[in-house]
Amino acid sequence: MTFELTQDYLDQLHAYIEAGDDERLRAEMEELYPADISEILNELDAEQAHYLLSLLDESVGAEILANLDTADRTDFLKTFTSEQLAPLVNEMDSDDAVDMLNEQPIQVREEVIGLLEDREQARFIIDLLHYDDGVAGSLMQKELIKINVNLTVNACIEEIRQQAEDVENVYAIYVVDDQGKLLGLVSLKKIVLSQKYVKIADIYDDDIVFVETYRPVDEVAELMQKYDLDAIPVVNVQQRLLGRITIDDVVDVITEQAEEDRQVISGLAGEVEEDDSVWLRSKVQLPWLVAGAVGSLMAATVINGFQSELGKIAALAAFIPIIGSTGGNVGIQTSSLILQSLADTSGLTTTLGRRLLRTLAVALINGLVVGLIAGTYTFLIGEPRLFFVVATSLLSVVLLASFMGTVTPLLLSKTGINPAVASGPFITTANDLIGIGVYFLIAQWLLSEL
Amino acid sequence: MTFELTQDYLDQLHAYIEAGDDERLRAEMEELYPADISEILNELDAEQAHYLLSLLDESVGAEILANLDTADRTDFLKTFTSEQLAPLVNEMDSDDAVDMLNEQPIQVREEVIGLLEDREQARFIIDLLHYDDGVAGSLMQKELIKINVNLTVNACIEEIRQQAEDVENVYAIYVVDDQGKLLGLVSLKKIVLSQKYVKIADIYDDDIVFVETYRPVDEVAELMQKYDLDAIPVVNVQQRLLGRITIDDVVDVITEQAEEDRQVISGLAGEVEEDDSVWLRSKVQLPWLVAGAVGSLMAATVINGFQSELGKIAALAAFIPIIGSTGGNVGIQTSSLILQSLADTSGLTTTLGRRLLRTLAVALINGLVVGLIAGTYTFLIGEPRLFFVVATSLLSVVLLASFMGTVTPLLLSKTGINPAVASGPFITTANDLIGIGVYFLIAQWLLSEL
Repeated sequence: MTFELTQDYLDQLHAYIEAGDDERLRAEMEELYPADISEILNELDAEQAHYLLSLLDESVGAEILANLDTADRTDFLKTFTSEQLAPLVNEMDSDDAVDMLNEQPIQVREEVIGLLEDREQARFIIDLLHYDDGVAGSLMQKELIKINVNLTVNACIEEIRQQAEDVENVYAIYVVDDQGKLLGLVSLKKIVLSQKYVKIADIYDDDIVFVETYRPVDEVAELMQKYDLDAIPVVNVQQRLLGRITIDDVVDVITEQAEEDRQVISGLAGEVEEDDSVWLRSKVQLPWLVAGAVGSLMAATVINGFQSELGKIAALAAFIPIIGSTGGNVGIQTSSLILQSLADTSGLTTTLGRRLLRTLAVALINGLVVGLIAGTYTFLIGEPRLFFVVATSLLSVVLLASFMGTVTPLLLSKTGINPAVASGPFITTANDLIGIGVYFLIAQWLLSEL
Repeated sequence: MTFELTQDYLDQLHAYIEAGDDERLRAEMEELYPADISEILNELDAEQAHYLLSLLDESVGAEILANLDTADRTDFLKTFTSEQLAPLVNEMDSDDAVDMLNEQPIQVREEVIGLLEDREQARFIIDLLHYDDGVAGSLMQKELIKINVNLTVNACIEEIRQQAEDVENVYAIYVVDDQGKLLGLVSLKKIVLSQKYVKIADIYDDDIVFVETYRPVDEVAELMQKYDLDAIPVVNVQQRLLGRITIDDVVDVITEQAEEDRQVISGLAGEVEEDDSVWLRSKVQLPWLVAGAVGSLMAATVINGFQSELGKIAALAAFIPIIGSTGGNVGIQTSSLILQSLADTSGLTTTLGRRLLRTLAVALINGLVVGLIAGTYTFLIGEPRLFFVVATSLLSVVLLASFMGTVTPLLLSKTGINPAVASGPFITTANDLIGIGVYFLIAQWLLSEL
């Protein structure tokens, strides 16, 4: 029932395409859902994908286009003229159409909109084009069913009939007043169960959750998740109903957000996948590696400054790794907890002072434990004079890294930078550098030999 | 319209509760959605929360219970007798009821089920109790509307009317044959638009996506996301319809999964939140810190073994941080890319050999760049004799860490351990250790002075 793409299947398709066996291709595609065909097109080259798509119905083609990976789609669409694109855009949901058109050069965008046969669709798209990425307006689709509060269930059914083709998942019918202001909603279930001449005014639910167009996307995601909504209406400042956001788009946002956070934490400077080209992967990995290298070389300069001390007690070098890695690990753990609490806006928020206090209490315990373990090790390698240096340094490093791990994400989130950066290699290396400085200073201070 | 919990509001509620002002409390709660009240209960102590809940309707109480955080809920429910719990469980969706009962001691579970007035609900719960966490069955709810293929639209509407109270979001009506085998579905929209005496057999859609009870939860999430489904029917091996999974539960799964991955990557040994107790946080952070410390102390042993070399060229110590951190950073980047491609089961899968080859090509470029940067630095600190040692070591470390970063998550995912561990501090420290060993060996080999 569910489709799995194999190399064999792909080879077979290649053969049909080469042979121009349109009938076979159509029959094969008939068996699949648009989302499956999108997967296939992602693996074909642009010309072949274009050929395959051109064999299919425009409504199917529109869904396939909406499902393509953004990167592949941009290449793919270069093989289309505006005249070829317009009929497909005609059939797309307005939000998907806008996402796709926003990836095109302005000229193509304008041409396609000009060529749209469905002038309502053109209006929808023009309305949606001007919302910035990251606000509710950018996720909204114009397709929905709304009904004036003074009408009857029967009129509502008529409205659904007229719009049935445009609105794939109805979920609910929105109820508006004469000015188009959102008053509430009526579920399809209620429509089914109500008598035909009942007035909408008597059955609608006025206690609903909605968002304004300017609300941040993650707030929308959180609201829909908290209240288990499958769609949320979007209004302007006068509370006029402008569109709706459906749960499938929010699921995509949540997944992308998680993906993006992970990339930032892992030190990848931008979107990349394992099967991207060697050059692209290198381009995405190198910036953070180089930044990390520069940080570590600063640490090298610190160490180099203590050459004479190292000359006297070579064993000091042995503890450089534990100082560096413990600082890094504590920094990641702490900032990860802060990130999590930043993401969770429900519940009460704590003050910075209280946050720091608790975090430093945890750091005190952890620092003492790790310090004692490493301190014990100084006896094992016959350097007991290093006990206090190593233990004190580790305790200080854990305290410092906890402080940095708390403050950095909070500062970043204020400046609009993705605070997940705070868990990335850059901050880790900074902790590394600070830790090593502290270590050698403490050594110099505590050891009379130096 | 949307509720925000403040300390003032909470203080006010406290006062009402102290004063036993039931009327005011009921009036305040009337204003809120159950999900908001859950947020409030999370902040109250168990006795107060119990008191507040007891003032509300059982159907509202059931929704509130379903929305509580698991950790808070367990404490909270200790204040309830089985007799008090049963009427609430009666009103819950079967999947939520099972989640909650699974957190209770067996005796409470059995008592509550025995006390349920709604015997259908009891049957539903008993059916669902035996599914393991992590398979489709564990997410499924029994509440759905199904109809025999031979009936009419009218009979379907009757069925909806009878089940309307139990099934909150209908989404679609499932069509079954006389044996209860799933044949397809009919959307509510179609029911609204069809004539009453049309047969379901003539209008239903037989081309649908479903899952078996034993399918892993992340497969379910991926299917629903790929095909933009709001609900997916769950069947047994004979394709008999057993229940359905709704998108809100899948959204929760996706969010939890992302959260869990991030905790593992950040080196947190278990679920924890910033506002948990100092002891709990320490308990969750320490295991990985200690594991990391032990790894670093192994690196210390390696360094200590090269004391005489360090005595001769103290500047060697300066490059310990860059060797360690570059190894760690490359390891995280690489394993993160592999993790991502493991999570994405769509598209074609690559062979291990091809994966390694591409990854090592990337590593070659990155290793050369970082190696040259660090190599140049040896001139800056007046130690040009270290150029080849540092550059070669870094290249080797980047190659090795890329290899480890590719192989480790693949091996872990085979053994059933969360492969995200491969991006955590443990593997990072291992890379650190290996890198330092390689560095000193290369130094010993290349430098005639040693």
